[in-house]
Amino acid sequence: MDNGVLGTQVVTQIGIIVKDVEKTARSYADFFGIPEPESFWTDTADLAQTEYEGQPTPARAKLAFFDMGQLQIELIQPDEGPSTWREFLDKQGEGVHHIAFGIKGMKEKIALLGNKGMPLIQKGEFTGGRYAYMNTLDELKVLVELLEND
Amino acid sequence: MDNGVLGTQVVTQIGIIVKDVEKTARSYADFFGIPEPESFWTDTADLAQTEYEGQPTPARAKLAFFDMGQLQIELIQPDEGPSTWREFLDKQGEGVHHIAFGIKGMKEKIALLGNKGMPLIQKGEFTGGRYAYMNTLDELKVLVELLEND
Repeated sequence: MDNGVLGTQVVTQIGIIVKDVEKTARSYADFFGIPEPESFWTDTADLAQTEYEGQPTPARAKLAFFDMGQLQIELIQPDEGPSTWREFLDKQGEGVHHIAFGIKGMKEKIALLGNKGMPLIQKGEFTGGRYAYMNTLDELKVLVELLEND
Repeated sequence: MDNGVLGTQVVTQIGIIVKDVEKTARSYADFFGIPEPESFWTDTADLAQTEYEGQPTPARAKLAFFDMGQLQIELIQPDEGPSTWREFLDKQGEGVHHIAFGIKGMKEKIALLGNKGMPLIQKGEFTGGRYAYMNTLDELKVLVELLEND
């Protein structure tokens, strides 16, 4: 067996779209008996360089992260700007948006998946790395996020 | 800190509702470069003793499991009988249905969550254990499955 197109099978994160990240973060903290993390907005467009459906977008999201075993749960509150986060909330409501995998070689992975019929939906930068959401809905029934840390 | 109502924060499984478990299992196997598992139907009602919304149901599902790191991905193809699986597919379509946690003391956990406003949706037996889906949508934006192995 090879290691598939990603080079890994280890799910590192589940991303959940929410309307109110602080409220839901409190619920997670209460439910699991864990500290409530600080939530924070993603970087502004000049830093994040977010592209959605091939176009730059000013969209941001307010995030909170919980480390739960090997897996991280990410809560994502979209702003009104155009993004995969906003689109998901408008179309499907709150719920699981993606599963994430740590990869190396972002450009190559995006091209590889694109060639296999799983195109890039959105990408952006964050301090220490970058992400890309790939349209794997037909194949996997959930979006895949590629995460590359420097 | 306590350990919350479950006594664990380790997500052991993500459950994904699909229309065609064999087709999607092939896609997962191809994508991740891992063997395609055998899919199989859950037990008949006499063995599974499935209850949905407090009533016995003959509903079954065809399942396939992938072990991906600490986490298992479960693909679930509902039949036409009344179940949380069928309801999810009819209302939301294919996508992530639940995250699961290994627990001890099923009856007590079901009662504890029920008392906190997170009632039982569906439960059933399988060889070597039992499961319960709890309605944690308001709090966690995803269903929680309790899994108890004997």
